[in-house]
Amino acid sequence: MWQQLLTGIQEQDQRALARSISCVENEVPGFESFLSQLPVGHAAVTGITGPPGAGKSTLVDALIAEWVSKHKKVGVLCVDPSSPFNLGAVLGDRIRMSEWYNHPNVFIRSLATRGALGGLHPHIIDITALMQAAGFDHIIVETVGVGQSEIEIAGLADTTVVVVVPEAGDEVQTMKAGLMEIADIFVVNKSDRPEADLFVKNLRMMLAPAFHHSTTEIPVIKTVATAKTGLPELANAIEQHQAEEHHSDRKDWLLTERAWKLIQQKRMKDLNKQMLKEKIASLRKDKEFNLFGFVQTYINP
Amino acid sequence: MWQQLLTGIQEQDQRALARSISCVENEVPGFESFLSQLPVGHAAVTGITGPPGAGKSTLVDALIAEWVSKHKKVGVLCVDPSSPFNLGAVLGDRIRMSEWYNHPNVFIRSLATRGALGGLHPHIIDITALMQAAGFDHIIVETVGVGQSEIEIAGLADTTVVVVVPEAGDEVQTMKAGLMEIADIFVVNKSDRPEADLFVKNLRMMLAPAFHHSTTEIPVIKTVATAKTGLPELANAIEQHQAEEHHSDRKDWLLTERAWKLIQQKRMKDLNKQMLKEKIASLRKDKEFNLFGFVQTYINP
Repeated sequence: MWQQLLTGIQEQDQRALARSISCVENEVPGFESFLSQLPVGHAAVTGITGPPGAGKSTLVDALIAEWVSKHKKVGVLCVDPSSPFNLGAVLGDRIRMSEWYNHPNVFIRSLATRGALGGLHPHIIDITALMQAAGFDHIIVETVGVGQSEIEIAGLADTTVVVVVPEAGDEVQTMKAGLMEIADIFVVNKSDRPEADLFVKNLRMMLAPAFHHSTTEIPVIKTVATAKTGLPELANAIEQHQAEEHHSDRKDWLLTERAWKLIQQKRMKDLNKQMLKEKIASLRKDKEFNLFGFVQTYINP
Repeated sequence: MWQQLLTGIQEQDQRALARSISCVENEVPGFESFLSQLPVGHAAVTGITGPPGAGKSTLVDALIAEWVSKHKKVGVLCVDPSSPFNLGAVLGDRIRMSEWYNHPNVFIRSLATRGALGGLHPHIIDITALMQAAGFDHIIVETVGVGQSEIEIAGLADTTVVVVVPEAGDEVQTMKAGLMEIADIFVVNKSDRPEADLFVKNLRMMLAPAFHHSTTEIPVIKTVATAKTGLPELANAIEQHQAEEHHSDRKDWLLTERAWKLIQQKRMKDLNKQMLKEKIASLRKDKEFNLFGFVQTYINP
């Protein structure tokens, strides 16, 4: 089976890709050695994040259209933090993007985070690598900028695009600092709103090198995703960032972040949270329970 | 030295506490066995978080005043994600709270996260346990709701208080889902603003059990921290939540979260990110570099 999937992926067969993703999601025995035989793909990963309501899905939709019109193959991963609060929005998004589901040059897959508070998906690195091996020109990972998912996207994507909407001038300063720090490119969507120009101006001021640890200028692109305005500029900015990317040592940093996360996962794999909880619950009933003593005994029994 | 610190902490000596925190922060050899000898403290931890600009520091200030007026001893940890974007705010906050620095029943300590993107502080669990051992009646951990710090505060605090400010009615729905999910108590600060009542109404609707995984009602407290309005109600809501707390199994869950994090830290301790990066950089120059193969070899050489 694994050999067949490997061959399928190398032949850019979307069904083989879909099935491989399911096998990895479900941790079908053998998936680890399967992953270590994957051909190395070189497509850059574009992460798209931002607060709920910023229009990310419409933007991704328009970006797919932009790249497809240039005969590019595009793979998209939609990562939905499973929050009861944005279930409606998520369903709406998925329906909106469905026009692409049957396009031969477009592959779209939704992943739920399965209730993990924050975080993208336990196998996001693996699944992204599968997509890279399947010969796409562009890979998009879309996620809501909630909890720690925005931190993780920055460690996963070659280019992180943060999508925001114009708000009253003062609000720029209270924008989530986390989003500010991870953006390689800013998109101000819904930029036909009257307050857009002032917002962009304030944003550019905030992004001035004096405030920011980066020395390169961070592009701020104005779009109206529903009207597909600004999309060529966005595609261009992404491609330019990824061209620079290959000359920098950021690729090493990204691979290190991914390796770190994979090693951490493997080292924690034996630890079952429920069993840990039961052990702690029973111990702390008897006596003065010292957490640090417990942990030390746990590590070195 | 360690024995002296232990005795000092048990005698509620603030200098011994301050020195112990520094030793743990700097990982002075022996700190781990010191921690495992700590007397177990029973003061509940109140986490206070929320977006920048919500008035958290002023609120903490007023909460200290409320408890001190009832002859309680209060320990406060201020955790500043080291973001270049809110340095000004952070300095302002610290100065604002300085009236308490010399009060005998108040202990305040600021911790920087030292550039970790997201996250509270590598030793936050240890330092909180030190504070608990030092005999305070109330412990407050204040942090900006940025990145993954809000996820971590929920795993650290017995009671998580989320502070927000009233905004135009529609905005409630785009409030960060992460903050919605962790709140045990909501504070709507600056509630003398005209839009406050509508905001509180919308917030209560969002918090109805149908939308929320909790079955208990989440209190929404209106405050004007600068005028100390609503503070007795807030203190009361916190104390009530913490009284219920002891009868629930949430304490087990909290201890499990803390144990999990401590075990993870210990298991990853040998892994130096810079060395990992150098290894990856050199390997991927020579040949087709497969990350999963690399990780597998790393785990089982």
